[in-house]
Amino acid sequence: MSSPGAEDQRKAQADFYAGLEQLYLLPNWAREAESQVAHGPHAAAVPWLWKWSEVRPNILRTVSLVTPEDVERRAIGLINPRLRELGRRGATPTLTAAVQLIMPGEVAVSHHHTPAALRVIMEGKGAYTAVDGERCWMEPGDLILTPAWTFHDHKHEGEGPMIWLDGLDVPLIRSIDSNFFERYPGQRQQALTQPDGASTRRFASAGLRPAAFKWDKPYSPLTRYPWERTEQALQAMIEKEATPFDDLYLEYVNPLTGAAVMPSMGCYAQRLRPGVQTRSHRHNASAVYYVCRGSGYTTIEGKRFEWCQGDVLALPGWHWHAHANGSTTEDAYLISFTDEPLLKYLGIFREQSGE
Amino acid sequence: MSSPGAEDQRKAQADFYAGLEQLYLLPNWAREAESQVAHGPHAAAVPWLWKWSEVRPNILRTVSLVTPEDVERRAIGLINPRLRELGRRGATPTLTAAVQLIMPGEVAVSHHHTPAALRVIMEGKGAYTAVDGERCWMEPGDLILTPAWTFHDHKHEGEGPMIWLDGLDVPLIRSIDSNFFERYPGQRQQALTQPDGASTRRFASAGLRPAAFKWDKPYSPLTRYPWERTEQALQAMIEKEATPFDDLYLEYVNPLTGAAVMPSMGCYAQRLRPGVQTRSHRHNASAVYYVCRGSGYTTIEGKRFEWCQGDVLALPGWHWHAHANGSTTEDAYLISFTDEPLLKYLGIFREQSGE
Amino acid sequence: MSSPGAEDQRKAQADFYAGLEQLYLLPNWAREAESQVAHGPHAAAVPWLWKWSEVRPNILRTVSLVTPEDVERRAIGLINPRLRELGRRGATPTLTAAVQLIMPGEVAVSHHHTPAALRVIMEGKGAYTAVDGERCWMEPGDLILTPAWTFHDHKHEGEGPMIWLDGLDVPLIRSIDSNFFERYPGQRQQALTQPDGASTRRFASAGLRPAAFKWDKPYSPLTRYPWERTEQALQAMIEKEATPFDDLYLEYVNPLTGAAVMPSMGCYAQRLRPGVQTRSHRHNASAVYYVCRGSGYTTIEGKRFEWCQGDVLALPGWHWHAHANGSTTEDAYLISFTDEPLLKYLGIFREQSGE
Amino acid sequence: MSSPGAEDQRKAQADFYAGLEQLYLLPNWAREAESQVAHGPHAAAVPWLWKWSEVRPNILRTVSLVTPEDVERRAIGLINPRLRELGRRGATPTLTAAVQLIMPGEVAVSHHHTPAALRVIMEGKGAYTAVDGERCWMEPGDLILTPAWTFHDHKHEGEGPMIWLDGLDVPLIRSIDSNFFERYPGQRQQALTQPDGASTRRFASAGLRPAAFKWDKPYSPLTRYPWERTEQALQAMIEKEATPFDDLYLEYVNPLTGAAVMPSMGCYAQRLRPGVQTRSHRHNASAVYYVCRGSGYTTIEGKRFEWCQGDVLALPGWHWHAHANGSTTEDAYLISFTDEPLLKYLGIFREQSGE
Repeated sequence: MSSPGAEDQRKAQADFYAGLEQLYLLPNWAREAESQVAHGPHAAAVPWLWKWSEVRPNILRTVSLVTPEDVERRAIGLINPRLRELGRRGATPTLTAAVQLIMPGEVAVSHHHTPAALRVIMEGKGAYTAVDGERCWMEPGDLILTPAWTFHDHKHEGEGPMIWLDGLDVPLIRSIDSNFFERYPGQRQQALTQPDGASTRRFASAGLRPAAFKWDKPYSPLTRYPWERTEQALQAMIEKEATPFDDLYLEYVNPLTGAAVMPSMGCYAQRLRPGVQTRSHRHNASAVYYVCRGSGYTTIEGKRFEWCQGDVLALPGWHWHAHANGSTTEDAYLISFTDEPLLKYLGIFREQSGE
Repeated sequence: MSSPGAEDQRKAQADFYAGLEQLYLLPNWAREAESQVAHGPHAAAVPWLWKWSEVRPNILRTVSLVTPEDVERRAIGLINPRLRELGRRGATPTLTAAVQLIMPGEVAVSHHHTPAALRVIMEGKGAYTAVDGERCWMEPGDLILTPAWTFHDHKHEGEGPMIWLDGLDVPLIRSIDSNFFERYPGQRQQALTQPDGASTRRFASAGLRPAAFKWDKPYSPLTRYPWERTEQALQAMIEKEATPFDDLYLEYVNPLTGAAVMPSMGCYAQRLRPGVQTRSHRHNASAVYYVCRGSGYTTIEGKRFEWCQGDVLALPGWHWHAHANGSTTEDAYLISFTDEPLLKYLGIFREQSGE
Repeated sequence: MSSPGAEDQRKAQADFYAGLEQLYLLPNWAREAESQVAHGPHAAAVPWLWKWSEVRPNILRTVSLVTPEDVERRAIGLINPRLRELGRRGATPTLTAAVQLIMPGEVAVSHHHTPAALRVIMEGKGAYTAVDGERCWMEPGDLILTPAWTFHDHKHEGEGPMIWLDGLDVPLIRSIDSNFFERYPGQRQQALTQPDGASTRRFASAGLRPAAFKWDKPYSPLTRYPWERTEQALQAMIEKEATPFDDLYLEYVNPLTGAAVMPSMGCYAQRLRPGVQTRSHRHNASAVYYVCRGSGYTTIEGKRFEWCQGDVLALPGWHWHAHANGSTTEDAYLISFTDEPLLKYLGIFREQSGE
Repeated sequence: MSSPGAEDQRKAQADFYAGLEQLYLLPNWAREAESQVAHGPHAAAVPWLWKWSEVRPNILRTVSLVTPEDVERRAIGLINPRLRELGRRGATPTLTAAVQLIMPGEVAVSHHHTPAALRVIMEGKGAYTAVDGERCWMEPGDLILTPAWTFHDHKHEGEGPMIWLDGLDVPLIRSIDSNFFERYPGQRQQALTQPDGASTRRFASAGLRPAAFKWDKPYSPLTRYPWERTEQALQAMIEKEATPFDDLYLEYVNPLTGAAVMPSMGCYAQRLRPGVQTRSHRHNASAVYYVCRGSGYTTIEGKRFEWCQGDVLALPGWHWHAHANGSTTEDAYLISFTDEPLLKYLGIFREQSGE
């Protein structure tokens, strides 16, 4: 039984708290505030693997269920289970992943928005993404950027379904409440003001740039990174320069500055040589991996996620992880995107090596 | 009455959606996803004014109700009403503001965390903040930085209450799930490894730097910006260089680089000359203003917020606003902090002038 | 006849000047000092063309006349006539050009020096330059960098003479009196610590970099820019992006930063399309051109310099010039180096367009 | 006696050399070319001290001998003896120093040039330098910048002689043949478009900048660094942060970037505490020191140069040197300028500590 003094104190505190609430004040020591400065990341997300064998049939079913006209884009988001519980969206706390489909003859209308986006092509041929006046034909494994506020639309002039993985920084932009969105004025598709694949022509070999080319944007002037070039570069890498955690590991960068392709999202491609098992590490950046070719598994906090071509894997920040190529004869290729550039900008990126 | 075909389609869709949910997939065109790409900022926050006349008595009441030992810090958060409705915290979507108090003889124990913080001193004398080995004595109007992961503690060696305004980027760091926190090991206060006010001595006059000083952090090496210097600089400004929206307007910057004081938060001081009414503008950066001296009002989206010394005002992003000094004889001084550096880094900062 | 007063004044001046001289003082208004602040560049150099048909036989004659052992390098400098008159060296006031030869089985011993150097391969196959542990096989049209203080040596393991053009910033480094030179300790050739062509493997496609690669030097990490890549890039350029003064014009850059390959020297490659005649311009950067393929002429201050493959042309700063491809069917290719990066760093680069 | 074969060889060589000369070719192994890649700096300059007691009477004599109208500027250059032997000018291979005088009522007409200049005020009061529309009143110890291509003129509105030390990068700009010069059009003095001392008002306290101030020049926006601020900053320095070679050592920097004040020249101020003797070091940057106050000596390569107020000392690059304050009770103050920023840009700055 508590003393009368303690009782008075409790009552005084209760009155006090009630008064604060009316004034839109909150004691920082109250339980609901405590969690604001947690003793480590919140684990707002869990590792998760979406199997291509399950995703593909569903995205194909949308063909008969909705049209691009109805829905702006025929895209299915990959939602992290833990984030869904929390009423949030995204594959990780900062990154959205979605699978998008376009059918022959269709157009996904032109728009732009402050969230930055990228696409990794999964399947199909004969469609293009137009970005700020440049038409980029899409082939499997290509990385295509549609940075913040660049107009973009898609059209399919080939045959069969065209499917790709979208990556966006929507959760970040939402959390900072800076979402702007506009349709391209007056037309379904933007004007093509540049030759086809202009930026891929301008920037081909490392260390050669059109002398007169001007650029003042904070993102890469190279819009499409063709898989053919990426694969060649991964093949050419010097084996003794393999990294312990990611084997042969390339960053997609702005060819004019060497910086990440966009301020909020960095992109990587990696080749896991036959039989390779990488060392474990963790970093507070979160990432989404796309299995471009091959099969293997990623062990995250002791749990093994077996993947093969087309699968998508979400890695939350600060989770120990290591990769393994399951084949002893074939390379495996992963393409990933991450919020690492943001954390580095903020000066709070951290990583640890396992043993 | 709908056709049998339409009925079938609805049923097919319902089955489809149910199947997606089990696979942690979400059609992006569903209503709950729609809002992710809104056609403008969400208005996740409203403009709000906390009156010093209401805040001060409440922070003083905490003296008898809680001790720093109990609660880590005796701080009361200023919570934006709209954010509270949404189950979020903060004065704006990215910025926390709180009023903190320390009494003579007390210590607020040393800790560090990935959220960056700053303090603007409101009232009192004889207390200090220690930051990474440097003791900074606090006087009203001073700006003191405790950047991400710098150890900091407070001690009051004077008389009477010492009160200040805390500004943090906690909502941002929470949204990117990168909250780390640690106490200083083994002691309540960190070791003082530098002379008192070392950084304020190192960096006094513009354009003079200790030749041998090395620095590789992404934030300012100047920990305390004394009010005395700020006021002198505001007084010395050239009147014809006044800005239309903020009158005589200074940015606190890193003296080694000219960049914002911290990557996530910029700080400004402004002098509104007697009778000045600024032009209206809006920008997607949100801000928190502290009224350092004088009185006047800020008109936000047509609503007038009358302020005087000690008041704190939250300005959400993308709200039209203009300032007025209510006196025709005295200057008014505001100190503010904002998420502008982050938006500029992301390449999505925007602003518009009113007429 | 001068007045007695004037006579006295002249005598006083003469005494004064004599006194100054003894004290190592010099009136800035004296004639010899006047020229220090001339009213435009001094024209310290003239445009000049060295014909391959004249240079080649002479460099071949050195085979029987001197050995690499005797002379460190079997190189013949191309000396600007006006600079020779002034007792200076170099093809332009800041740039040295020389033609160097190595015969099968020979080694040019390893050394390094503060002057930065580059090589453009003219003729031959089967020899290599080793640069900081990397062996770069040389083929015609390749650009190979040996930046300041990088050890470099050459060896010929093939057949026939191997000839290249050297470009150095020796006149600049001499004028700032910072010439340092050392032989590689204990051996004629440096140790090969990297795989053959390592940097050319690391940096192949634009916008792809080994993620773990660290670099903190002020020059390009790409040592050899193979002609094959340069030619492809020039072929792929978008014709409507041709520049008025240089037609299709590429800068060789640091693939990690987009900066010039070295701080003191920038390098360019250009394709003059059949029949092209560029517009005239002038800039205060001086340059040396190597005719990689084709024939045509460059008009400098009204004088026509007819060139064909292998010729070397010196362009002094601030001389009007324009290029023409003499063929209506074949492209012409020029490779050039220039002191433009230095002038831009100093903030005094200037250029003017002709009519 | 040499063999007939050797004789033939000598003859062949002589013929060969004669032929080369006609073609403006030069064997790099010839003696005159050898020196181009010397095995260390050329020692193109010697250390030298100009005594104020000798310089001052001579600059005062110019009053009766020449007028500013006659001579553009009434300035006497301090010429390094070794450079004079070589037919060059300057106090060091890259830096000019001169003492300039203006008398009451006189004007030194407005002009600009690509060489960058700075002034350190030696004696007098009531005169000003105008730089790009800003009037800077001059007081002893002030540093005033007139960067490349900024219009500048001087006028004396006070009493008695006004004398200062000029520092320029003329030898560098001459060696790269980029000297441009123009008078201000139509007037002897430029228009004053800014308030008096505008830049000194804009940039006063470290870490505070006018928020709306725009600047894109490669030099400091702060034109006058008043001695009063410099002295206060030197007094405030933390003694345990003294450097071994220069005691309490400040760099004058661009307040917006922290970079050297100009790309070609850096400036330093240092306080030698009573009785201090610094350790010896050497670096390839050359420097000119002005003794602002106090007396002492600098030992250069074993030779002692005793200095007192007003003296000017030239330190060539790569010379061992150490400073000593000769007084045990008074501080000594030196202001110096150097070509260090250029060497750092080129990546060839080097320094060594003595024992």
